[in-house]
Amino acid sequence: MEVINRLLNYSNLNIVQNTDWFNFSLDSVLLANFVEINKKTKKIIDFCTGNAPIPLILNKKYENCNLDITGIELQPEIFSLAIKSLNINNKNDKIKLYNMDVKELPLKYETDTFDIITCNPPFFKVNSNESKLNDNNVKSIARHEIMLNLNDIFSVARKILKNNGKICIVHRTNRLIEVLQEMKKNNIEPKRIQFVYPKINSDSNIFLIEGTKNGNSGLKIMKPLYIHDKNGNYLDEIRKIFE
Amino acid sequence: MEVINRLLNYSNLNIVQNTDWFNFSLDSVLLANFVEINKKTKKIIDFCTGNAPIPLILNKKYENCNLDITGIELQPEIFSLAIKSLNINNKNDKIKLYNMDVKELPLKYETDTFDIITCNPPFFKVNSNESKLNDNNVKSIARHEIMLNLNDIFSVARKILKNNGKICIVHRTNRLIEVLQEMKKNNIEPKRIQFVYPKINSDSNIFLIEGTKNGNSGLKIMKPLYIHDKNGNYLDEIRKIFE
Repeated sequence: MEVINRLLNYSNLNIVQNTDWFNFSLDSVLLANFVEINKKTKKIIDFCTGNAPIPLILNKKYENCNLDITGIELQPEIFSLAIKSLNINNKNDKIKLYNMDVKELPLKYETDTFDIITCNPPFFKVNSNESKLNDNNVKSIARHEIMLNLNDIFSVARKILKNNGKICIVHRTNRLIEVLQEMKKNNIEPKRIQFVYPKINSDSNIFLIEGTKNGNSGLKIMKPLYIHDKNGNYLDEIRKIFE
Repeated sequence: MEVINRLLNYSNLNIVQNTDWFNFSLDSVLLANFVEINKKTKKIIDFCTGNAPIPLILNKKYENCNLDITGIELQPEIFSLAIKSLNINNKNDKIKLYNMDVKELPLKYETDTFDIITCNPPFFKVNSNESKLNDNNVKSIARHEIMLNLNDIFSVARKILKNNGKICIVHRTNRLIEVLQEMKKNNIEPKRIQFVYPKINSDSNIFLIEGTKNGNSGLKIMKPLYIHDKNGNYLDEIRKIFE
């Protein structure tokens, strides 16, 4: 079922979702919030953009920065949700969307094109025990590394990022080591990590990481980010991101 | 100047220090606390044991477990402090100490000898900008990778650990990537990490990590450990470790 939801409480942003596939998630909101923009930042591209929450949030948050934001989505069914999301927010002229495979971006763009890449990728390996492949093909491709894996993401990033350009991704904490290895393999130096904890006293389930193309070594582990209090309500810090 | 200090408040353990070189540190107490012992744990060895805080704490904490604990210290001056620390606590028959180079341990011990290795190693690279080599040679060797580096530690660990044996170390967070790489290179799989934050809202400065020889992949990022409150006093969780 296709529905319209509010994206962030503080804004008048809405987002079009299809409840049969997935809802836009907290992960994307946290990732958009994790991105650091500076005066030189111009061109941003969001891989696996889904229904485009990250382009919409970045456009809203940095309204006066004149950012050039592009979103890439492989699946036509989801791409059409992204287009609708732009429409209902009147952002068609502010954000570019392409229905294409991330792996083909190096054919479309020159090397050294983007300042920042964002990506909320498929979290699960195809052979993972943790999540069975879903009968619903659209959902499976969004959640599993069927069409795009970590090496694809970072090898494309290496090509289309500017020198010292940054890639910010969110991923499951139990895949941290692989993420670090794939980054290093592609000359992307891990610079900042923020671990996210579903609640106080639990282990981390997801993390946010920023890497710099050809960056110097020197990694910062930022303060932890907690999501819920004991009663399952969002903690103030998370509420602030939404509100 | 040689002095005797209380090691943990809750215990009657004391430790002999020389204030010209260094004091036993919080790092060692946190590392001893991080180690997980089970019913099968018998043989533990502490590399870079210094004045032996880790052997003393583990012996005290697991008094009834009949652990076989060994400490290794390269520098004769520091080794003599370790011997004195054992003496004043009447632990000479409970803990073995050897004045030798960690790199020579594979000559002394068979492969597959130890269940657990602990190590609070020299933190700084020899060419590090962060800390100048000290004129005081004893202190320099304790703090810098002059005589022992990460690859030495994990390649020795790989040899003398039992299959599925564990190594627990403490290190500076800005060297996390190197620690992970050296572990992987030596078939030691990172299993648990706990990041330590000097205070709430600051970045992590040190971390505790456990790796398993020939272990399966699957890393857990444990809840964060904060040290000080806003006024610089130890937080309750740290106080509990000491008291």
